[in-house]
Amino acid sequence: MSLGAAPVVVNGGDGLAPVTAAAIAALVGGELIGDGTAEVVGVAALDRAAPDQLSLLAHARYANWFRSSRAGVVLLGEPFRELPGAPTARIVVKAPMEALLAVLPRFHRTPGRTAGVHPTAVVAADAVLGADVTIEAFAVVGAGAVLGDRVWLGPHAVVGDGCVLGADTRLHARATCYPFAELGARVVLHSGAQVGREGFGWVPRPGGVQRIPHVGRCVLGDDVEIGANSCVDRGSIDDTIIGAGTKVDSLVQIAHNVRIGRGCMIASQVGVAGSSRIEDGVQLGGQAGLAGHLVIGKGATIAAQGGVVGDVPAGEVWSGYPARPHREQLRASAALHRLAALIRPLEQLLARQSSSDDARRDGGTEGRP
Amino acid sequence: MSLGAAPVVVNGGDGLAPVTAAAIAALVGGELIGDGTAEVVGVAALDRAAPDQLSLLAHARYANWFRSSRAGVVLLGEPFRELPGAPTARIVVKAPMEALLAVLPRFHRTPGRTAGVHPTAVVAADAVLGADVTIEAFAVVGAGAVLGDRVWLGPHAVVGDGCVLGADTRLHARATCYPFAELGARVVLHSGAQVGREGFGWVPRPGGVQRIPHVGRCVLGDDVEIGANSCVDRGSIDDTIIGAGTKVDSLVQIAHNVRIGRGCMIASQVGVAGSSRIEDGVQLGGQAGLAGHLVIGKGATIAAQGGVVGDVPAGEVWSGYPARPHREQLRASAALHRLAALIRPLEQLLARQSSSDDARRDGGTEGRP
Amino acid sequence: MSLGAAPVVVNGGDGLAPVTAAAIAALVGGELIGDGTAEVVGVAALDRAAPDQLSLLAHARYANWFRSSRAGVVLLGEPFRELPGAPTARIVVKAPMEALLAVLPRFHRTPGRTAGVHPTAVVAADAVLGADVTIEAFAVVGAGAVLGDRVWLGPHAVVGDGCVLGADTRLHARATCYPFAELGARVVLHSGAQVGREGFGWVPRPGGVQRIPHVGRCVLGDDVEIGANSCVDRGSIDDTIIGAGTKVDSLVQIAHNVRIGRGCMIASQVGVAGSSRIEDGVQLGGQAGLAGHLVIGKGATIAAQGGVVGDVPAGEVWSGYPARPHREQLRASAALHRLAALIRPLEQLLARQSSSDDARRDGGTEGRP
Repeated sequence: MSLGAAPVVVNGGDGLAPVTAAAIAALVGGELIGDGTAEVVGVAALDRAAPDQLSLLAHARYANWFRSSRAGVVLLGEPFRELPGAPTARIVVKAPMEALLAVLPRFHRTPGRTAGVHPTAVVAADAVLGADVTIEAFAVVGAGAVLGDRVWLGPHAVVGDGCVLGADTRLHARATCYPFAELGARVVLHSGAQVGREGFGWVPRPGGVQRIPHVGRCVLGDDVEIGANSCVDRGSIDDTIIGAGTKVDSLVQIAHNVRIGRGCMIASQVGVAGSSRIEDGVQLGGQAGLAGHLVIGKGATIAAQGGVVGDVPAGEVWSGYPARPHREQLRASAALHRLAALIRPLEQLLARQSSSDDARRDGGTEGRP
Repeated sequence: MSLGAAPVVVNGGDGLAPVTAAAIAALVGGELIGDGTAEVVGVAALDRAAPDQLSLLAHARYANWFRSSRAGVVLLGEPFRELPGAPTARIVVKAPMEALLAVLPRFHRTPGRTAGVHPTAVVAADAVLGADVTIEAFAVVGAGAVLGDRVWLGPHAVVGDGCVLGADTRLHARATCYPFAELGARVVLHSGAQVGREGFGWVPRPGGVQRIPHVGRCVLGDDVEIGANSCVDRGSIDDTIIGAGTKVDSLVQIAHNVRIGRGCMIASQVGVAGSSRIEDGVQLGGQAGLAGHLVIGKGATIAAQGGVVGDVPAGEVWSGYPARPHREQLRASAALHRLAALIRPLEQLLARQSSSDDARRDGGTEGRP
Repeated sequence: MSLGAAPVVVNGGDGLAPVTAAAIAALVGGELIGDGTAEVVGVAALDRAAPDQLSLLAHARYANWFRSSRAGVVLLGEPFRELPGAPTARIVVKAPMEALLAVLPRFHRTPGRTAGVHPTAVVAADAVLGADVTIEAFAVVGAGAVLGDRVWLGPHAVVGDGCVLGADTRLHARATCYPFAELGARVVLHSGAQVGREGFGWVPRPGGVQRIPHVGRCVLGDDVEIGANSCVDRGSIDDTIIGAGTKVDSLVQIAHNVRIGRGCMIASQVGVAGSSRIEDGVQLGGQAGLAGHLVIGKGATIAAQGGVVGDVPAGEVWSGYPARPHREQLRASAALHRLAALIRPLEQLLARQSSSDDARRDGGTEGRP
């Protein structure tokens, strides 16, 4: 057969059955205004939504979008109840975003999991498999590896020798665990993520460098998520540890011996150098970088692109390179841009000042008897 | 058999048949000076080229390299016609780089594509395959996926359930489409690239965070290219869209709900946070980072490592962190480095000024009756 | 079977046989103090070590940790010989870190390599395999590829057509060589690394851009190591070359035509743009970025996050964006943060100065006859 062009598919939503405005109102406990039979099959922002899509209006700054929106059904807050606009049906709720979250699963088709081992998978004879595991095509499970109940390995996932994966842990396509990595329960490794590599540790030797044998573990706590193509090294002479509930976005690098606490949020492309400690509840913005052997105190936040070269106290927000308290950084940045217009008169003033000082000093000398 | 050392292979070029200087001159419509029978098998820069290689001289600053170059044949501009130098043959052309581009395919061996499905590939029974598709070893195609004509899946490529790939789209080795991603025609995903992952969207809940179900699509327009190990997330409550003809380099992160226009160039290691809009023809330099919910106007440029935290007007060039117009940034940076020498005298001057102000004020007070 | 929770595993070490304090003392030539029969099975930092673990004390600042450490055996320097502390046994050595390095292999279980080609691997009929190669599950070797003796391809490794791999080179799980890449002896590509992709080179054309055919090679010298998910592009009209002994960490991007010397250390998330030259022994800190067509002189160091936009002289340390000599950068940064408190009085002073200048000038003018 021949396909001239890709078929047209609706925006948002995964092609499940349509839902009516009335059903949504009932689901979220909202007040329906307009045509309750209006049907939607997906979700989109107000300015892009089609008549068969659901949208939301939560902030006044998007009110203009509402007026001209083609969305079929809109979840909105009490202040917008009477706002003129095109949508066929509106549903008034207390918290529009929370209401949307309640509806989203109706549009979300999660490809199902079937327990079983795909015939192409290569599983070591002495690997230990829990109940109802799913191992997809071309996955590889090494010698002595232990998989908890309902572990789900996507296609091409690789679990090295001696790895331990807790119950309900999931490796997406081609996620890789180097030998001896240990993952808790409900851990998620996204596509291309890898954990447990021997880190970047070298000893200078005549004529080159020698690799430090890494004997520390790579340990991920329960409910940890590691984003696509992110890397977590195993420890060299200590463990690398990521605490329970910590979420890591894509393309992040966590070096050897790093210890990350519980409930941290680490955005995309962050890099953490060796042996640093990140306490519970820390937030690292995108592309932030931490030097080695630092301590980031509990609940601290590092802004995006921040380059941290010293310890950060608990609860503080730091930014810039070298990172400082965000408030100081803003003041310094503002001062710098005001300075640009002043630098020349300043130089002139100081030059004048300096020559008049010289003159005064010379005068004083001359005046001596 | 035993291979003591890797065999020696010539620089540049993929080992195709040699080409003579005369043939190259004919191909590019240039004027041949010197030995037309000189043969080359590859391409290299003037300072590294061997006698069996082609090189070019397009700028005066490389004239010195030409004098001592061992290159067999050199494409050069009119101004360099008489320049003394070692190459066996020179070919005078109007635009040396354009001439070289015309010759390059003669040295470029593109491993051929043979239509067919490798016996090891795992293709779902209900996947729809266009005419003359190529599916290489260990590729996986999920349920309901649709592949256009001449789609080419490299080894270990993964196409999730419900994905749609336009005609002539190519996935290199182990590129991965999460379920329901939609790719236009002639899209290229490089090795390890992945598109359509559910993004980094979480709602705070007592005791942790809850993942937002992502129902938005991940849509790549025609002729989009995504570099090696780059990541494009699917939308959460809207689509993630990359416009036709936009090229993305390696290790780039594009977050959920981002909309990128047509013909943008996005260099390596760029990060774009959620819901930002990048209009047509925007250029993002290497390692640049964009915060969420921004608008980068049509044709704007962000310099390498720029950290953008606010909207950027169309056509402007911004740089630095926090990003500002590049010209302002340069002035500020220059002022800062001039300030370093002035800060101490400035502090002294202001201190003196302040105490003389105090004295004046005190004097005035004392003088009152 | 059902696994309620992952089994408890000791910290550090790969589960090999225990080693006694006496055996360690003998191995490192140290002086044993305490119970020579104390056994350890792994390694950890002083503050986390358990009684069955080895630790070390090399710096006075960790002396407090020693006092309360639960470690069974500690390697320590002469100054700490008498330090009060809990460990069962201490071993006094000249260089504790060097002593630890000598012991580490005793705790490091390297999954063995067995020569042979896994039955699931797909190896082209005309590929040339050296003696005793190891090719694991689902690896793919393309037409005309040449593998030296004892080459080791991990699961899902991909070696493209015409690639050449030197003896003892190892590709970890799913590392990928695009066609025609050339790797020396003892090269290591970590999981997800890819080399030899055609780089980000485009020529503007009406209606879009045209890809430059890349005919340059991607050449990695002996003993090069490329980290997880890192990318090295092949050259466009010249080769991309990484010199012998250079080590590259994870998530690094090396663009087309870049030439890197011998013995360089390139940390995680570094980006090097096209055609730059990095001479021998250069060190690039994490997340540093280099613009294209630069020269970084022999033995220079770029600090983490440095953004280099011009040549860097040999032996110098540069930092910041735009990068400057590190000492200047520190002075400028310090001056900037002192400026923040001065900017307002400075503006007032200059305003006063300017108006008094005006007054003087006006006065002078008035005074003229």
